[in-house]
Amino acid sequence: MLSADALLKRISEEISLINIFTEPANLYAPVNYTLSRSGKRIRPLLTLAACQMFDEDIEPALPVALAYEIFHNFTLLHDDVMDKSEMRRGDPTVHKKWNANTAILSGDAMMIMAYNTLSKSKAEYLPKLLNMFNKTALEVCEGQQFDMDFETRNDVTIPEYLNMIRLKTSVLIAACLYSGAVCGGASDDYSKKLYQIGIDLGMAFQLQDDLLDTFGTSAQFGKRIGGDILEEKKTFLLLKAFEIGSTFQIERLNYALNSIELSEQDKIMFVKDIFEDLNIKDSTIAEIEKRHSAAIMQLAELDIPDGRKKILYWFADFLKNRNK
Amino acid sequence: MLSADALLKRISEEISLINIFTEPANLYAPVNYTLSRSGKRIRPLLTLAACQMFDEDIEPALPVALAYEIFHNFTLLHDDVMDKSEMRRGDPTVHKKWNANTAILSGDAMMIMAYNTLSKSKAEYLPKLLNMFNKTALEVCEGQQFDMDFETRNDVTIPEYLNMIRLKTSVLIAACLYSGAVCGGASDDYSKKLYQIGIDLGMAFQLQDDLLDTFGTSAQFGKRIGGDILEEKKTFLLLKAFEIGSTFQIERLNYALNSIELSEQDKIMFVKDIFEDLNIKDSTIAEIEKRHSAAIMQLAELDIPDGRKKILYWFADFLKNRNK
Repeated sequence: MLSADALLKRISEEISLINIFTEPANLYAPVNYTLSRSGKRIRPLLTLAACQMFDEDIEPALPVALAYEIFHNFTLLHDDVMDKSEMRRGDPTVHKKWNANTAILSGDAMMIMAYNTLSKSKAEYLPKLLNMFNKTALEVCEGQQFDMDFETRNDVTIPEYLNMIRLKTSVLIAACLYSGAVCGGASDDYSKKLYQIGIDLGMAFQLQDDLLDTFGTSAQFGKRIGGDILEEKKTFLLLKAFEIGSTFQIERLNYALNSIELSEQDKIMFVKDIFEDLNIKDSTIAEIEKRHSAAIMQLAELDIPDGRKKILYWFADFLKNRNK
Repeated sequence: MLSADALLKRISEEISLINIFTEPANLYAPVNYTLSRSGKRIRPLLTLAACQMFDEDIEPALPVALAYEIFHNFTLLHDDVMDKSEMRRGDPTVHKKWNANTAILSGDAMMIMAYNTLSKSKAEYLPKLLNMFNKTALEVCEGQQFDMDFETRNDVTIPEYLNMIRLKTSVLIAACLYSGAVCGGASDDYSKKLYQIGIDLGMAFQLQDDLLDTFGTSAQFGKRIGGDILEEKKTFLLLKAFEIGSTFQIERLNYALNSIELSEQDKIMFVKDIFEDLNIKDSTIAEIEKRHSAAIMQLAELDIPDGRKKILYWFADFLKNRNK
């Protein structure tokens, strides 16, 4: 059994091997730039961790682990163009450092590179891995589209929101656990159980993200606190407030969100005050807790030695207690 | 042996089956719009035609044929965003009819749908088909990047240009012929021969496109004649003129291309006059002829009954004599 650190080291080695293309430089330099910035590498780590639950040899899971990491980075690249985001992980985004056309085309190249890496998987697992990858990739696009659609809608419900984050975030985590299990030789039954654990963990992960954006501290979270409020994002927090707030509180919420008089700082304070009156923080934590315990319970029920579940337990703990 | 018309009918049936996704509408409506506009369907037709050369049953080649058609349409969708083109095949482009974000994301979805369709190929052919698809898709991106790079360069050579159109156009035609042959059970040797025939036909096809853009008639070509001249595109015609023109002719060419005094019509006339003085039309036809005969010769040498080569001969003829 390799430790999380050992797995991350193996992932880094593999990623450095992908950056071999050079010409045309305007196509591949942005790809290399994107892949070499150090994200948390959560998706390939979970893929390898799931493989290790069934087989100590993680090598067969490396292609699909890398494929999901490249795909995830591709989505960030195109999302940044669509959202006009200028910074990502403390560095300028590709469309800011180069331009939008470069970001579109090098993103396209990354998606192909993800499939190219995936295609190096063992032939016996390839059809299963490909089906899951295709399904998941399309769902992530659907999630992004719903997210964009929600920007101009005022009637988004909490179930719609939860479905959106399931598509945009959870299915990718779930697909990583599923695919790792497949490469470890797990039965269909076990692979599907891992998938469901991934859905719950992914939902908890995204809800925690929403929570930190409003109730984290900037130094911990690494990005500006209150960004979601300023962008009037329909997060779980805001939708919950609209659901349970009094007419008066909803009026004040709408006033603050649409106000052009309030300073940014005041707008954030104003909305946070209403959230606090409504115990939104606790409602969100309860929602996270629900997904977290469901995942832990399913994990406990798997007939696999506990030592093999260590990284997944660690991840479940990490995402609940993380502050960045 | 099915006729080209019968194959095209089969392709249309299959394409209509792909348009089954509905939600989110803002993601899938542009996909359906793009796929249902009737292009020439050359790529899937060639795929099925290559399959038929080796086996009468074309069904195993349908997934990969469709995959290349969807991929081709995806590249047009993203290219139109990058080039800011407003019209395509007589209709508004997706980014014009919707917006750039919709075009980016629905293009991404189309690329995944292409892979999804490809994945339905027989498991025994899948690794070969996937490898070719990945390699080709990445090369098409490289070709598009070189094309964009050339816009701001004044030292593009003819070999560089030929390499760019090989990547942007020919490899896709070649991959279709290769993949069709694979699905027909052709040997590696034969599949590779088909690939090389595709490269030559693809080069001839693109050079003919360059020629028609300047020397076609608008009614035949379906788009405005002289567009390449107005956009100062480094086509084979222009690069050849720069290569063989006298210092005086090159000066006049540069004057016309950069002129803000000349009307569009005068600019086109001016450049065409120089092209005619330099016999650029004949040089281009000679270049097309070279690729065309190479393809025909290789096709003739294949140890396959002539009746089975009919559609490929027809295509070779069509692309040389086409006027649109």
